Parts: sequence; C-alpha cells; structure tokens
Amino acid sequence: MSGVLYGVGLGPGDPELMTLRAHRLISGATVVAYPALAGAESFARSIAAGAFAPGVREIVMDVPMTTERGPAQVAYDVGAEEIAGALEAGEDVVCLCEGDPFFYGSFMYLFARLSGRFEVEVVPGVTSVTACAARAGMPLAARNERVTVLPGPLPEEELRARIEGAESVVIMKVGRHLPKIRGVIESLGYGGQAVYVERASLPGEVVCPLAEAPEKAPYFSMILLTKGADPWL
Amino acid sequence: MSGVLYGVGLGPGDPELMTLRAHRLISGATVVAYPALAGAESFARSIAAGAFAPGVREIVMDVPMTTERGPAQVAYDVGAEEIAGALEAGEDVVCLCEGDPFFYGSFMYLFARLSGRFEVEVVPGVTSVTACAARAGMPLAARNERVTVLPGPLPEEELRARIEGAESVVIMKVGRHLPKIRGVIESLGYGGQAVYVERASLPGEVVCPLAEAPEKAPYFSMILLTKGADPWL
Repeated sequence: MSGVLYGVGLGPGDPELMTLRAHRLISGATVVAYPALAGAESFARSIAAGAFAPGVREIVMDVPMTTERGPAQVAYDVGAEEIAGALEAGEDVVCLCEGDPFFYGSFMYLFARLSGRFEVEVVPGVTSVTACAARAGMPLAARNERVTVLPGPLPEEELRARIEGAESVVIMKVGRHLPKIRGVIESLGYGGQAVYVERASLPGEVVCPLAEAPEKAPYFSMILLTKGADPWL
Repeated sequence: MSGVLYGVGLGPGDPELMTLRAHRLISGATVVAYPALAGAESFARSIAAGAFAPGVREIVMDVPMTTERGPAQVAYDVGAEEIAGALEAGEDVVCLCEGDPFFYGSFMYLFARLSGRFEVEVVPGVTSVTACAARAGMPLAARNERVTVLPGPLPEEELRARIEGAESVVIMKVGRHLPKIRGVIESLGYGGQAVYVERASLPGEVVCPLAEAPEKAPYFSMILLTKGADPWL
C-alpha cells in the first residue's frame, strides 16, 4: 500500500493562521517536504516547524529563483521522485505550502507530477489575499461585487486595462514591479483607494497607503484596491 | 475599557478547516454573535459550536433572505447595538463568519457599523474558493495567471463578457442562477473545463463536471473554470 500525499496550506505566515487540520497532519507526520527558494531558509518550514514531531524526515526542494521555468522544473522533478520513493515505501508525506496549495502555491508543481500515481489530499489554507485585507481593515467584496486577482509582473498596459475594468483588485507578487503598478493605479485616479501590505500577519508587517509604500518591496507584498462600496452595505 | 470585537472567519464548513486562532478565540469567548438566515439554523454556529465554552452568551442576528437591502440592514443595525452593549460593558465579542470575514462575509455589515467606535480584529479564514479547488483537485492559478471572481447573480451579458476575458474563473453564489451560468459557459465553449462544487468539505459534498450539475443548486455552490495551463507548469 502506497502512502498518501498531503498538500497542506499553511496560511500567510503567522503559525496561528494554520488550520486545525494542517496542524494535526504536520504534528503527526513522519515525512515532510517543502521548497526552499534559492538556498534561503524555507518560508514554509518556518511557519510549520513549531509543530514538527521529533525525528521527522525533511525532504527539501531547493528551487532556484529565476524567471526561466526550466531550473525550477528540474528541482520539482527531483523532489517529486524523492517524495514518490517515500510514498512507495508506504509512508505518508506532508508537503508544506505557504498560503493555499492551489492559489499560486508551489504544491501545484508536485500535484502535476504525482497526482496520477498516488492518492493526494489537498488541505486548503488562508490565502495572503484575505490575510492582507484583514490586516488593512479593508473589506474586499460584498453582495454582487467582482474581485480580480492580478500578478504584478503582468505588462503595464495589461495591468491598466484589467484594473480599469475591475471593481476590487488584488495585485500579488508586487516586489520590483511596485513603481510600475503604482504608476498605473495613480494615473487611473485610484491612488487614494489603494493600500500596500507587506509581510501580513508576520513580525515586521507593513500596512500603509500605496503612496507611502517603500521604493523596494519584497516579493511577498500585495496591493489592494477597492473602488468604494456603500459603507453601510 | 471597552471590549474588543473579533470578526472570525470559520472556513468553508468542516470545523477542522478553522484556524488555530479562530478555535482559540471561540473556545475562550464569553460572548459570541452570528447571523442566522431567515429563521434557519445558523451555518456559522454549526461550524463553531463544538468549540463553545459552557455558558457562552449567544447574540443571534436573524437576517431575512431577500434581494432588498433594507430588511437585512435593519437586522444588522439591531445586532450591532446589542454587540455594542456588550463591548461597552467591557466584554470581548467573537463574531462568527462562514469563510472569510472580508470576502463576501456577513461580518462586513458589523464592521461598517462598529469599527469607528471599538477596537476590531479581523481573523482571516479559508475561503470557499480554495476549499472548492482543493476538493475538485483543480489548481486555480500559477505563475502570472489571473483569477476572476464573479457572483452568479450578475446579468447574463456581463457574465459572458467577464468570462470571455478571464483566465481562471470562480463563480460564487450559483444557486438558482445555475442554468443561466451554464448556458454562458457552454456557449463560450468552456463546458468541458468547468467543475461544479456544492457543500465543499461538508457531508453531502458534490463535485462533478458542470454538465452533470443538478438542476437545483443551493446558494452555497460554486463553479470553477480554468482555461488550461501546462500540466507540468
């Protein structure tokens, strides 16, 4: 009997924002797997490590940070085979994933490689989207409002067109694209309704009007823009 | 000293998908508040009740189901004043909210009424969006893909235009709008890529291709549509 692969969402960073199910699976795991970006400490591991059982085996996927797909794909190919070995030996593997596994989550790369061969359960997590909205005190959508999620690396003209036609807008993966995104939002006249959030729910969290955002934003930063619903809804 | 108002997301329905923080706040609460729709049992209460402390005081907001805004606003006006009374008396109040408080969540109505007068903390929750994707085994978005969230009650022509221009699409609040939404998706040629999910993570869950969705869908049902990324990402 092969083991089960669990893709477990960890939420935005505060370990208390893990689900009860994530916590139970992690603390009972004998094998955990997680990505580490470009040799740095794994963010996923840092969220979950407090729940690790003594002696847990850790499978680390060292994923290079590059805009090319090839090198990351190789890292996930190698990681998937190591995970497959544990599953074939009858062990369950708990794969740790920041945020939610299927919402810009690294677990998708393993799901694509392993879901045809093994039983997989995906445990959803709190996304950075609603964590940022909570910290900013900014309701995202009520009633029949639309929400549009846009990655910051999109080209300027596409961002402009998508933001113009949207109601509530969430811009992920801001990082070095901040000046471009800010320029688009301000030129559309929405500067006063946009909030910048960095490290939501973590020490060093930043929440401020977009106009006051730092020039250098980390990859895990976000911009929220709502076009103003009735305050009494 | 006034108490603190906590707006606590409970996730999609399975009590194990509550966050550790939600569980801790609920089990320590002396006053909880929640909406009940049209006299029915409260869905929010049903998720959280297993964590209630003995003797907890329950403030119930009986919200009528109607497309008019007035009657629901009155229910939240009345509930907000009862909650304000407890806060002014120095008690913390934990307000229960299915899913996430700021993502189509009922807590927004209380936040709009009380956040100017009292300290408020919003605890984000797992949304039905990622819970449905997890149950459907359907990754929502990777890399630089966009996600569009649309409420099912939108007019047919608006749905058509929004779905046509989107990548991944999440349609919330399907309910009696299912035939209209299905017609739009099939006429655009995306019928084969759409999944219907009802009661995600709960007993009686339904996950099936859109073509096989039941004619009568409940309010809490969802359609997911992805336009096909590279399976190896």
